[in-house]
Amino acid sequence: MTKDQANAMWGGRFAAGPDAIMEAINASIGFDKRLAAQDIAGSRAHAAMLAAQGIISDTDAQAIREGLLTVLSEIESGSFAFSTALEDIHMNVEARLKEVIGEPAGRLHTARSRNDQVATDFKLWVRDQIDAAVQGLQALIAVLLDQAEQGADWVMPGFTHLQTAQPVTWGHHMMAYVEMFGRDMSRFADARARMNECPLGAAALAGTSFPIDRDATAAALGFDRPAANSLDAVSDRDFALEFLSCASICAMHLSRFAEELVIWSSAQFRFVTLSDRFSTGSSIMPQKKNPDAAELIRAKIGRIFGANVALMMVMKGLPLAYAKDTQEDKEQVFDAADNLMLALAAMEGMVKDMTANRPALEAAAASGFSTATDLADWLVRVLGMPFRQAHHVTGALVALAEQKGCDLPELSLEDMQSVHSEIRADVFDVLGVHNSVASRLSYGGTAPEQVRAQIARWRETLA
Amino acid sequence: MTKDQANAMWGGRFAAGPDAIMEAINASIGFDKRLAAQDIAGSRAHAAMLAAQGIISDTDAQAIREGLLTVLSEIESGSFAFSTALEDIHMNVEARLKEVIGEPAGRLHTARSRNDQVATDFKLWVRDQIDAAVQGLQALIAVLLDQAEQGADWVMPGFTHLQTAQPVTWGHHMMAYVEMFGRDMSRFADARARMNECPLGAAALAGTSFPIDRDATAAALGFDRPAANSLDAVSDRDFALEFLSCASICAMHLSRFAEELVIWSSAQFRFVTLSDRFSTGSSIMPQKKNPDAAELIRAKIGRIFGANVALMMVMKGLPLAYAKDTQEDKEQVFDAADNLMLALAAMEGMVKDMTANRPALEAAAASGFSTATDLADWLVRVLGMPFRQAHHVTGALVALAEQKGCDLPELSLEDMQSVHSEIRADVFDVLGVHNSVASRLSYGGTAPEQVRAQIARWRETLA
Amino acid sequence: MTKDQANAMWGGRFAAGPDAIMEAINASIGFDKRLAAQDIAGSRAHAAMLAAQGIISDTDAQAIREGLLTVLSEIESGSFAFSTALEDIHMNVEARLKEVIGEPAGRLHTARSRNDQVATDFKLWVRDQIDAAVQGLQALIAVLLDQAEQGADWVMPGFTHLQTAQPVTWGHHMMAYVEMFGRDMSRFADARARMNECPLGAAALAGTSFPIDRDATAAALGFDRPAANSLDAVSDRDFALEFLSCASICAMHLSRFAEELVIWSSAQFRFVTLSDRFSTGSSIMPQKKNPDAAELIRAKIGRIFGANVALMMVMKGLPLAYAKDTQEDKEQVFDAADNLMLALAAMEGMVKDMTANRPALEAAAASGFSTATDLADWLVRVLGMPFRQAHHVTGALVALAEQKGCDLPELSLEDMQSVHSEIRADVFDVLGVHNSVASRLSYGGTAPEQVRAQIARWRETLA
Amino acid sequence: MTKDQANAMWGGRFAAGPDAIMEAINASIGFDKRLAAQDIAGSRAHAAMLAAQGIISDTDAQAIREGLLTVLSEIESGSFAFSTALEDIHMNVEARLKEVIGEPAGRLHTARSRNDQVATDFKLWVRDQIDAAVQGLQALIAVLLDQAEQGADWVMPGFTHLQTAQPVTWGHHMMAYVEMFGRDMSRFADARARMNECPLGAAALAGTSFPIDRDATAAALGFDRPAANSLDAVSDRDFALEFLSCASICAMHLSRFAEELVIWSSAQFRFVTLSDRFSTGSSIMPQKKNPDAAELIRAKIGRIFGANVALMMVMKGLPLAYAKDTQEDKEQVFDAADNLMLALAAMEGMVKDMTANRPALEAAAASGFSTATDLADWLVRVLGMPFRQAHHVTGALVALAEQKGCDLPELSLEDMQSVHSEIRADVFDVLGVHNSVASRLSYGGTAPEQVRAQIARWRETLA
Repeated sequence: MTKDQANAMWGGRFAAGPDAIMEAINASIGFDKRLAAQDIAGSRAHAAMLAAQGIISDTDAQAIREGLLTVLSEIESGSFAFSTALEDIHMNVEARLKEVIGEPAGRLHTARSRNDQVATDFKLWVRDQIDAAVQGLQALIAVLLDQAEQGADWVMPGFTHLQTAQPVTWGHHMMAYVEMFGRDMSRFADARARMNECPLGAAALAGTSFPIDRDATAAALGFDRPAANSLDAVSDRDFALEFLSCASICAMHLSRFAEELVIWSSAQFRFVTLSDRFSTGSSIMPQKKNPDAAELIRAKIGRIFGANVALMMVMKGLPLAYAKDTQEDKEQVFDAADNLMLALAAMEGMVKDMTANRPALEAAAASGFSTATDLADWLVRVLGMPFRQAHHVTGALVALAEQKGCDLPELSLEDMQSVHSEIRADVFDVLGVHNSVASRLSYGGTAPEQVRAQIARWRETLA
Repeated sequence: MTKDQANAMWGGRFAAGPDAIMEAINASIGFDKRLAAQDIAGSRAHAAMLAAQGIISDTDAQAIREGLLTVLSEIESGSFAFSTALEDIHMNVEARLKEVIGEPAGRLHTARSRNDQVATDFKLWVRDQIDAAVQGLQALIAVLLDQAEQGADWVMPGFTHLQTAQPVTWGHHMMAYVEMFGRDMSRFADARARMNECPLGAAALAGTSFPIDRDATAAALGFDRPAANSLDAVSDRDFALEFLSCASICAMHLSRFAEELVIWSSAQFRFVTLSDRFSTGSSIMPQKKNPDAAELIRAKIGRIFGANVALMMVMKGLPLAYAKDTQEDKEQVFDAADNLMLALAAMEGMVKDMTANRPALEAAAASGFSTATDLADWLVRVLGMPFRQAHHVTGALVALAEQKGCDLPELSLEDMQSVHSEIRADVFDVLGVHNSVASRLSYGGTAPEQVRAQIARWRETLA
Repeated sequence: MTKDQANAMWGGRFAAGPDAIMEAINASIGFDKRLAAQDIAGSRAHAAMLAAQGIISDTDAQAIREGLLTVLSEIESGSFAFSTALEDIHMNVEARLKEVIGEPAGRLHTARSRNDQVATDFKLWVRDQIDAAVQGLQALIAVLLDQAEQGADWVMPGFTHLQTAQPVTWGHHMMAYVEMFGRDMSRFADARARMNECPLGAAALAGTSFPIDRDATAAALGFDRPAANSLDAVSDRDFALEFLSCASICAMHLSRFAEELVIWSSAQFRFVTLSDRFSTGSSIMPQKKNPDAAELIRAKIGRIFGANVALMMVMKGLPLAYAKDTQEDKEQVFDAADNLMLALAAMEGMVKDMTANRPALEAAAASGFSTATDLADWLVRVLGMPFRQAHHVTGALVALAEQKGCDLPELSLEDMQSVHSEIRADVFDVLGVHNSVASRLSYGGTAPEQVRAQIARWRETLA
Repeated sequence: MTKDQANAMWGGRFAAGPDAIMEAINASIGFDKRLAAQDIAGSRAHAAMLAAQGIISDTDAQAIREGLLTVLSEIESGSFAFSTALEDIHMNVEARLKEVIGEPAGRLHTARSRNDQVATDFKLWVRDQIDAAVQGLQALIAVLLDQAEQGADWVMPGFTHLQTAQPVTWGHHMMAYVEMFGRDMSRFADARARMNECPLGAAALAGTSFPIDRDATAAALGFDRPAANSLDAVSDRDFALEFLSCASICAMHLSRFAEELVIWSSAQFRFVTLSDRFSTGSSIMPQKKNPDAAELIRAKIGRIFGANVALMMVMKGLPLAYAKDTQEDKEQVFDAADNLMLALAAMEGMVKDMTANRPALEAAAASGFSTATDLADWLVRVLGMPFRQAHHVTGALVALAEQKGCDLPELSLEDMQSVHSEIRADVFDVLGVHNSVASRLSYGGTAPEQVRAQIARWRETLA
């Protein structure tokens, strides 16, 4: 089909053909060819339904369905010649179908419009990406669970304001991210369930007078039901926005972990060693190990949330039903999805490969009188001391230790009793970082026992 | 409690008190006092649990719980004196509690920290807003259903590109928004279920060695379960981001409807008349009726999605666990929630009051040969004509009508047969806007019958 | 150069090569090849300076400079084979240079690093885009001036809230956009002046011990001066953010105009007719003329401002000096720049081609007693009536006209005097839309005389 | 003036008064009262001009101008009773003026509208904020210059990827921020110059037929000239967007510095000690010093850029001229401006107070063979070795040092010559962090001499 033929599709009333600028701004085939498989699946389901309803003949439907498989294989093999003059994927496929099977191709467009067709294609594509994101999250959670299990009782500093606050366990820290990525999985699942209504059959915007069976096409394409309002069905882009929103929150979680990995890889922290695979180095400075992958993952929230902003801005104030503005939806979602999948895979690989520097973690955890809170809690819990008095006594004991140049567990019982006479030997059961973390047995706390329980729960959930 | 006493809470090591700038940037009481009811509910649940677990005495718990009610009533009556030196709502309440009940007040802070306390307070607040948003959406849907029912068979133009494409019904158009706001309800409900895990008991970040019962406090506060990781519990703000994200998509829907109302109120369209209640006018130009409320609703997406951007930006790259950055979460959510509720209420009022201009809608629907598609479909469906030939014949008939200065239904059968001899009298059953909409009986189509079925489905769902 | 050789550039310490994921996330050649011309220009300037300073020999410099031209011509002709293993444009060019000229290629990297090199390349690219944007704006302003001149005295409704408020002239409305796009030009010019400092010579981050001449390279590349701090020079992306910010405001202006064109093209307004070139139609509905280009231009603000959000998010909280996160800057700016240029060109074409529907504009301007304000002003100005009384009298006259079914200019003098006896015949000089606009002679007002003065001013400015 | 009187301003045609919802969404007095001083200044200039042009009497003008001062003093003293029923600051002031001076108050509104009035008020307010921002930036630069001067020759690690790359000087690092904040000053100055056109006299949207003198009011209010198109003048919000855009880039710079301060304050880095004034601590953990102010400053970019997004979204697609949507501009700009000023002041205070930990900085700078690059450069520069060979030799020397457990400067000349015989004793002139930084004398490099030159240049610029 030539450019002249393509123009003919708008009828003969346009004296002038669209010039280069219009073609550049208007044609979408440059990007929407990524919807080819979805477009063909939708058309195959539509043709089967049309035949089942007696709207077209079985022979025509058969020819259409087989011809579409031929077109698909041409596209997959790279031999398909996409044409900008044909504007979009739908017209490219249809034009080629006509070359392949002839006249019956023209019947495929019965009771359908490009408006419901593109909404269906794009929903199918986004649905696939949700599934891919969930898989990527599962894989990432799996390596986090392995890290957590290995280091369920390794102590490290628990930070507030990047200042050591209390000791926690490596496993506990890893499991915090499991919770975040677990919420991401749940959020994607909700988005999938909500969007799983089929626009096909909404036609241009008003439905159709052909006796179509929308339940049949919905079922054939894996949708839960047809969309209930044809105007909404062709103008709705909630599914794309909700995908971007879920992807953005997930990217935010990735950015937090990536930031920690960058800081932890610094010469000053040395909490982890990233594998050579996910770093770059200097040929002359052997210690320098740049956490490039972590930095790039940290940055991905920019373009993913940027895409969310872009599409929200496009949708603002659009009258019903279809407007060309919505053609700007796809590139944003494509880019965001590609980068989310890449970031998840890179994070999975990085976490799988990374080595925690256990001695450095423990040393950092023990510094700064990090178990002072445990001591104060012991005074309250065991001696029944009021909170404020317990803080006063603890402060005095810390001052004593500081003066002696030692940490709290290294004070003698006599030292302790010189500050407060009722302190007993079992106070040492809560001092020291290992005792501290072991004691935090409240549900969801950092005690290795609690961490292992959460690992078990997650392994069961994901099994 | 004086400012000096407040400083004393950080211990005596700070030689200098925070000066005016620090107080201005650091104190949150100016806005977090909106969390007072939630803060007190959380503290009351915590005190009851501490007593039930034998961590504090029943007498102390009783004193605390009653004292907190006193403080709450002082706040609600406006007699409470908030102090900036006490920084936040938690310390303001606690300090006043101490004045009211004395020493037992100090025991309330056992096995708790401001970190888990503020996360709990804020979650409770956001959860209330979700409930309010769902109520607002239900009320809005109710008035849309009334509009839809009244005008289930009124015809109006169905637009694409703001150009008349096909006739649709007023009811159908209203129901498109019911679908959108229905998805908003479902999205808020999912967010509520996901966030409904209680942070209380996560303590500063590591859990606690006190034998607390987190299931008890979670249940008392209406949560489904305690949050499973204490580090995550104090640093998570997903619930706020997801609320903002749901609110933003909802505000986008409102902006689309508001845009339509502004356009429909113009002298050129005159599709609707807004009530005086929701417009402003000119003392000297009686026709001028400015749709101020609609314009303001259209604009609300700005600040609501702006808040989403703001909080996403704050959370980007924050290391675990607590960081002061997250204090910036509340004002954004407060403002977004206030404006969402206001916009929903204003839209509900505006839709309830507005009058569709039925003759103007019908006249606009009938212009521009808007049933040409119906004619083409009839040729395909009844005469079995191939799609492209049907378009050619339709084009010729439209040209004929245009030449005669009439619309398609006004052509005679002879006129029609002069273009294509097989055309029969029953072609007139699909021409004209009423026939057109009545024929679009596919599920979700614009036929009054379909529209009424959808209204019935929604009324049942919401009953 | 093979992949193994490429790895060798990081030295031998990496046991494992970067695998597919790392290559996918890390390599930038897929997009930064757009910087080829800038990269080569920068390298040629650097080589010339190194020779002038005696750091490398004239022979080597000559070989390098000529070899780079060879590489550039290969790239421009499409014969260059880009390699992902070589990561980025800098290494691709350098590796090919070595193949072309051999050993001297190695000397090009003296006193330079990829950090200052990429900052220089990208600045040069952005600077070119600023120049292109200014040209696009000039061309758009030129067609707006033509439209304004042609219709300097055509009356149309001046809207507030999309309600007719007062008559204005077509020329005046066009000139409002000239002001906006004029500010855009000025904003781009300021951004260009501010960014025009050359990073080259900042080296990795600290400057260099080679006796380089940064003024020479800056001058050779058209910069006003070298950047004054090497740490800042390699980590600064203000120039990209400021470009995006200027582009976003410009895109906002375009979105406003595009929105007007969409509304004006509706069957209800019919204020303008867009050319076939920039619309699409329906083969069977001759009146339907979809303003696709206008809708797409309206949407462009999404991706352009989305890019601004993306990059701002990337830069948030980045420690100095270079971080890999900043590699995410280019795709955002490339996409935003491409789309801005396209939107400017499409708007220029659309404005050039469009035809104002003068009778429809005038009819709309005259409706709704749009000159009531003129009458009130006349009562104040000529009769010295207090403002509020003038409004009262005007309201009574409008009511009288409404009752008689006519507009204000059609009332007789007797009618007028029946409301207020002092009204004189010269009141008719301000009634009617032509008198109204002609009277608004204040500077910047809508009077044709004022409009023509502004057109003249702009033509002079741009000459 | 009562609520009924206020309604009367829209004329009697509204049967129903605006109810609570409409008042809540429509009234702006809750926030635009911050424009009181600007509103009164604008009105005073307008009244003086009206009298000078003979449009109102000198007596009336005198009464108005004095009455307005009375109103202003009431507002400033807090005795003014703002009324929501009067909607906005303009009507509140005008109503009170009428109470104070009686009938002449009504003449103030001659040749003016609320549309040009609010645009003028808001521009004046934004202009003041630009001046405040520039002052805040100057103060911040002043303390950075002091820090830079004190530590012009203190060495610290220059990071790439948060890995030590090369030694730099403390002064150099401080001066990188001076460059950034200097660009912010220049950006604000450009925005000020561009926005400095006076909207007053644009009236509702079309200009006026009164013989006003717009140059006079522009000059009286400190504007460079009147705005040249009345439609643009009332609908333009570029000045607000450009202010937000400048503020956002500035906030991004602040976020980068704040991030560094948080990291530098960690126990692992200990590069700086923040003053007690700008930190909070723990009563029982003396080392814990939470950088609260730095974290809050880091977060401010969220709300400031969020405001930018909000307003850009509001402006997207708004038809000319005035639309109520733009009422959403003020709160965003107020909040962003307040927070920018606060963040600048807090950063200034924090930088002024902070103490660099010189020994820790120097120790960190010297680790990781950070002068390996200097060695390689020496081999190239002095021995004329090709770049790649120099890297090979350097790698071998680093390996030797690593094996001996020492740093490069501690290798003997014999050790060196064992790797490459031509190495001479003057190689030691470039080894060691002090030699390294001293050698980087290229313009803008890290050498103390260069740093001091830049400090001098800035002191002169700001003098």
